[in-house]
Amino acid sequence: MNMKAPRGTVDILPGEAKKWQFVENKIKHVCDRFHFEEIRTPMFEHTELFQRGVGDSTDIVQKEMYTFEDRGGRSLTLRPEGTASVTRAFVENKLYGDPSQPVKLYYFGQMFRYERPQKGRMRQLNQFGVEVLGSADPAVDAEVIDLAMSCYQEMGLKSLKLVINSLGDKESRTNHREALVEHFKPHKEELCADCQLRLTQNPLRILDCKKDRDHPAMKTAPSVLEYLNEESRDYFDQVKNYLDSMGISYEIDPNLVRGLDYYNHTAFEIMSEAKGFGAITTLAGGGRYNGLVEELGGPATPGIGFGMGLERFLMALEAENVDFSIDEKLDCYLVAVGEKAEKEAVRLVHELRKNGVQTDKDYQDRKMKAQFKAADRYKAKYVLILGEDELENQVITVKEMETGKQEELPLNRLIDTLKEKLPGGREE
Amino acid sequence: MNMKAPRGTVDILPGEAKKWQFVENKIKHVCDRFHFEEIRTPMFEHTELFQRGVGDSTDIVQKEMYTFEDRGGRSLTLRPEGTASVTRAFVENKLYGDPSQPVKLYYFGQMFRYERPQKGRMRQLNQFGVEVLGSADPAVDAEVIDLAMSCYQEMGLKSLKLVINSLGDKESRTNHREALVEHFKPHKEELCADCQLRLTQNPLRILDCKKDRDHPAMKTAPSVLEYLNEESRDYFDQVKNYLDSMGISYEIDPNLVRGLDYYNHTAFEIMSEAKGFGAITTLAGGGRYNGLVEELGGPATPGIGFGMGLERFLMALEAENVDFSIDEKLDCYLVAVGEKAEKEAVRLVHELRKNGVQTDKDYQDRKMKAQFKAADRYKAKYVLILGEDELENQVITVKEMETGKQEELPLNRLIDTLKEKLPGGREE
Repeated sequence: MNMKAPRGTVDILPGEAKKWQFVENKIKHVCDRFHFEEIRTPMFEHTELFQRGVGDSTDIVQKEMYTFEDRGGRSLTLRPEGTASVTRAFVENKLYGDPSQPVKLYYFGQMFRYERPQKGRMRQLNQFGVEVLGSADPAVDAEVIDLAMSCYQEMGLKSLKLVINSLGDKESRTNHREALVEHFKPHKEELCADCQLRLTQNPLRILDCKKDRDHPAMKTAPSVLEYLNEESRDYFDQVKNYLDSMGISYEIDPNLVRGLDYYNHTAFEIMSEAKGFGAITTLAGGGRYNGLVEELGGPATPGIGFGMGLERFLMALEAENVDFSIDEKLDCYLVAVGEKAEKEAVRLVHELRKNGVQTDKDYQDRKMKAQFKAADRYKAKYVLILGEDELENQVITVKEMETGKQEELPLNRLIDTLKEKLPGGREE
Repeated sequence: MNMKAPRGTVDILPGEAKKWQFVENKIKHVCDRFHFEEIRTPMFEHTELFQRGVGDSTDIVQKEMYTFEDRGGRSLTLRPEGTASVTRAFVENKLYGDPSQPVKLYYFGQMFRYERPQKGRMRQLNQFGVEVLGSADPAVDAEVIDLAMSCYQEMGLKSLKLVINSLGDKESRTNHREALVEHFKPHKEELCADCQLRLTQNPLRILDCKKDRDHPAMKTAPSVLEYLNEESRDYFDQVKNYLDSMGISYEIDPNLVRGLDYYNHTAFEIMSEAKGFGAITTLAGGGRYNGLVEELGGPATPGIGFGMGLERFLMALEAENVDFSIDEKLDCYLVAVGEKAEKEAVRLVHELRKNGVQTDKDYQDRKMKAQFKAADRYKAKYVLILGEDELENQVITVKEMETGKQEELPLNRLIDTLKEKLPGGREE
């Protein structure tokens, strides 16, 4: 029998989960300050959505999707990325009709890609992403990049590289496309099978090819930046100026084209430059997709967003040795000795928790010494000791573990005392 | 083209998502106080896990699973519930070897069941659940029930009903099973096709049948409680005593058997009794499953847990008109007038956010009046006004919207002033 997690998936166990919670909370705070709001879309969509919204000619759609039929014969696909789903939700729920435009959304969620699993590339991956729909202001491009960078920086990452590019508007893209076809046509036979297909379907993506990366024609390929028309150049200049004014440094890489079909104008990636981070250095990638809402049946609406891999975020934190300073201490551990005290302890733990005090006790029928050992393992701040005598006299011993000090308290004063000792305790 | 969310799934839009966040945070705080820790398992598992861990004869496995082959020919299934996955993770990651026993875990996640969608029953549903593995102490049964009740009560729910039962240990179950077969055999032909099968496979589940609910033989069926051996009866008594000592009231329902195969001893359900809640009143259900870890290849380990539907939790909150009192106000909205001020505003918003102040501005090229309108829509606490004159003099106007008071500040004092005005602001 196969009782392991499926290939390319992992369990996130408690110690690790605390780090995830910490990073996710930090990101949520950043989103909150940027006035972005959460949206949650289903784990799967009609397959057609991704064929149309990600692009039929992309690797994702052609090779990497988890597609299946449900019991009603619908072709469904586990979402491989977030933008198509959020855009579909924007259209279906008519968010374009909201007076508050642009609509600024963020999401957390699992994505699924059937790839060869390796470090930083899992089949089930966790992504955070944002989408801003409804504004063509280049200030939004800068805002979205600012948000992504803020998430990393506020977690303490330092070795980051931001790379930007512009793919221009439709006219610019068409002109560039023609130049690319002209340029690569003489080398068609030397390119990989995928690129030969791309030459007719989406020549821009040749620049993104991992196999043909070192072909000499790649270096001399016409840069998209040379084909930007005036409007597109002006748009890109504004984005750069805003980034400059924010003090966000970047490099321009004319070969940055992103793997998805629907991008135009600004494209960007954030990489980790930390030593020992591994071969795949991209932490986040995004860009503008002004045609997508229309493509999915909505009114013409500009859009921009990014997706950020959380596995890689955590890897980068590890590579840079960022200290999470997570409080792993337990507030109280109740040691009970004797049958009556053990019974009473269950009630007392209930009372303490009800009053906002984090508490645990033994559930393994351990002797007193082993209970103290458990308290140590949990790094208890306070150990409460209840024996038959204490119970008889309605008192309890409270021992502060850091100092070793202990005092005896009337049982009915325990909760108030602990609340004082543990200020800013757990919310009731 | 089908550009809608798949049948039985919904988008959770920003206004609604805030409620979800609120409830989830509350639950996480409860778990923290109870000293439970989060675990995250994959969205899908090998199909065999659920066949074995949920039970081949259950409706879930027979009719409701989303099962598919991946590109490598593996049979995978989107998880229909949480216990099998968490138990698999417990075994695979050898958590039974951790000196801190029992292992107390909680999880949040989507579950998938192909059922007829209706209010409170979606194909993709959100569940919170806990599992405690490694202790056979009846105090844990009470603890787990206490945790579930606390989640509801601390959100303000009042109309709750806790129903408990005991299925006893293996011996008790076997004796009861034989009595059930004896009892239903004469009526076999009158039962539904499923129940006829259950009579040989798992007669206990006949008591759970929705179709045969009104058959006269149901009322006279032998109660599991009559077949508890001494040990099981004692165990159940202890659970009840602990609940009594905690002041948690309950009803005993000998017909409460749960739909899953692996339960023994304590079973429980929590229902909403709120008016207008709808036909499906179960909010959460759980119980003990002492044989499951072994069934999944681990060492003999007792276990208990519950699953709580979050859609229904939110429905119950709505039915009881619980006020979430979520702060929907935006801290600052920056109104900029004139081209230069608009450019500077982008930088300023960046600075404010970087310093922990929640801020937004216009990205739609709106005139001043429309910008003020937007600030109203966002319920801004403060509106900052930056015109060409202000920019020239390096000042900014700060208007407190509640009082209408406004003052002019030097630009370089803006951040400190706002931090003072907005105490306990957004974490930096």
